[in-house]
Amino acid sequence: MQSVRVELGERSYDVVVGSGLLRDIGRQLSELTSFRRCALVVDQAIATTHGEAVRRALAASGFTVCEASFFASEENKNLHALEEICRTLLARDTARNTPLIALGGGITGDTAGFASAVYQRGTPFVQVPTTLLAMVDSSVGGKVAVNLDGSKNMIGAFHQPKRVLIDIDTLATLDSRELRCGLAECLKHGIIGDADLFSWTRERLPRLAALDPGSVQELVARNVAFKAAVVARDETEQGERALLNLGHTFGHAIEGCGGATRYKHGEAVAIGIAAATHFAVSRKLCAPEVLTEIESTFVAAGLPVRLELAATDSELIAEMYKDKKTKQQNLTLIVPRKIGECTMLRGVADAEVVRSWEYVRRADLTSNEG
Amino acid sequence: MQSVRVELGERSYDVVVGSGLLRDIGRQLSELTSFRRCALVVDQAIATTHGEAVRRALAASGFTVCEASFFASEENKNLHALEEICRTLLARDTARNTPLIALGGGITGDTAGFASAVYQRGTPFVQVPTTLLAMVDSSVGGKVAVNLDGSKNMIGAFHQPKRVLIDIDTLATLDSRELRCGLAECLKHGIIGDADLFSWTRERLPRLAALDPGSVQELVARNVAFKAAVVARDETEQGERALLNLGHTFGHAIEGCGGATRYKHGEAVAIGIAAATHFAVSRKLCAPEVLTEIESTFVAAGLPVRLELAATDSELIAEMYKDKKTKQQNLTLIVPRKIGECTMLRGVADAEVVRSWEYVRRADLTSNEG
Repeated sequence: MQSVRVELGERSYDVVVGSGLLRDIGRQLSELTSFRRCALVVDQAIATTHGEAVRRALAASGFTVCEASFFASEENKNLHALEEICRTLLARDTARNTPLIALGGGITGDTAGFASAVYQRGTPFVQVPTTLLAMVDSSVGGKVAVNLDGSKNMIGAFHQPKRVLIDIDTLATLDSRELRCGLAECLKHGIIGDADLFSWTRERLPRLAALDPGSVQELVARNVAFKAAVVARDETEQGERALLNLGHTFGHAIEGCGGATRYKHGEAVAIGIAAATHFAVSRKLCAPEVLTEIESTFVAAGLPVRLELAATDSELIAEMYKDKKTKQQNLTLIVPRKIGECTMLRGVADAEVVRSWEYVRRADLTSNEG
Repeated sequence: MQSVRVELGERSYDVVVGSGLLRDIGRQLSELTSFRRCALVVDQAIATTHGEAVRRALAASGFTVCEASFFASEENKNLHALEEICRTLLARDTARNTPLIALGGGITGDTAGFASAVYQRGTPFVQVPTTLLAMVDSSVGGKVAVNLDGSKNMIGAFHQPKRVLIDIDTLATLDSRELRCGLAECLKHGIIGDADLFSWTRERLPRLAALDPGSVQELVARNVAFKAAVVARDETEQGERALLNLGHTFGHAIEGCGGATRYKHGEAVAIGIAAATHFAVSRKLCAPEVLTEIESTFVAAGLPVRLELAATDSELIAEMYKDKKTKQQNLTLIVPRKIGECTMLRGVADAEVVRSWEYVRRADLTSNEG
């Protein structure tokens, strides 16, 4: 077991990474509250597996649990689901000092976290992510949100958890495609600011795919530490934190234009990073070899870097303008300069972006992806 | 025109109080943003009066306005209304750096303010309150929220405005009953922590009822300064700020038990303060003369201090337990020790509270209230 501190002044917290942590949740929660009540929002898909382990551990430590079940899907990540969670809390007289635990992937964490942020103007929040993507990305940093009419994360808050508990054993039951989506975010972290993490991850892809415990724990801890450092320097995304959106403006556009049924989030981001890197190469901000290295690594990790989608370029670009990073009328992109360094470009012209969309639609890498 | 600073570190802001400020809103907003776009959420009831003045002033300063109309009522202060506001913002491609102006009373400010708090995880917020109650209470301090299934302010956030613009001219069109509700909160401030403000207000009740401009501006500025000082010392209600809830645990119970149709918020709070003061007297924390002085002042201000409601005591008490200040199983009350000093009582027994409910049901003061 190891612990990574997220330094945010009086909102600082620990991310605990290890094996068997679900069984330890009662003791962990006891460190955070003197009360013996908590709320638990759990993804329906794991309510009988991990949910049962958590329930037993909480009961063993004497906790009374108000449980709200949540059907985790992008469609259900909305204000109605938020209201249902709050309604369950209210019906059980849940007070504002009662900790709320989110158990599940990123969608569960984002929705339950937003409920925790706004129920009675904010309750103590504990993240227990069960997917690699949520472990290394959404569960750290306090961004919580729901979607609005298909626009992702349009309504939300910054609400830091009191603790994040990452039990790497939960990855054993994770779909391998979901695991690869988590790897996409880890590789993204390397590209943004840690060349050594990128090459370390690339070398260990086979061991990570086989869920070698030592490698998985190191992967999670390193990526949590990377993200924690970025968040500590820029909690509310005034500057540097925006770099974490590498690939996301393109990726969200793919998801918003009907790609969400074909691609999972990490897959859309992988294609988005390829598009953003192409953009950087075409602007001569980045060497063509970087694009090759990024694409070959993603392909080795089993991730797509080419887009197959019926949406037109203009539909995709219109969707990019909905992105929250867009200030007024200008499109903003995060692009790599090299592995380990990214930069933000403002006022990007649509015509330039079109060329990068055209690039990721080419079929030249399809044979390597199989 | 005068200005009161709310000191909250990097979230500090000015509350500007004066005459003719609606016409000055374009210039005021220009001090806060370099962009020439803003969002305006306006209470339907004043859309053609004050709304038109604000629209003209914004247009004169070159602002493009995305306007969302809102039907302000306790029933409509919910997540659905919030979603509709956010939907309007999204449809007009409103970005996260676009200021949102709330124009109306407390319900409009609370709902629009919550939309501003969560749309794209937070946008710059400007409060333009048009009722006395909103001017001296809800528009200062950053508490924003909507109701859930009849439970007041159950879903919300702390979201400080960038500026509060109080145009006292808007009170000229305010219903006199609404004006009295604002006076209830002013008198409450005096009871909590400013005996001089209490006696000053009491002496000027006739001039305030006649909307003497000098008296009204001083009333608003003094009460804003009082609340600003409390909020500066305790932004997120960990301690002292809870004292502002004097009368509100009783008052919210009255509103929650069907009293909202009979009593306006300030009226329910006035009865609630009478009940809380009776509680303090019965505990010998407060002299009986204080209760007499408070009640006679409220009556002089045209406010009720006796309850006429079909709800039973046990229904009222059950409603009190829904109050957000209630920690776990104990009822918490704010009560006066004297004019200018209040205290918080935890772990109050239901049987004691019943006696204070019985007290405010007595008919002894009815003749004075007419």
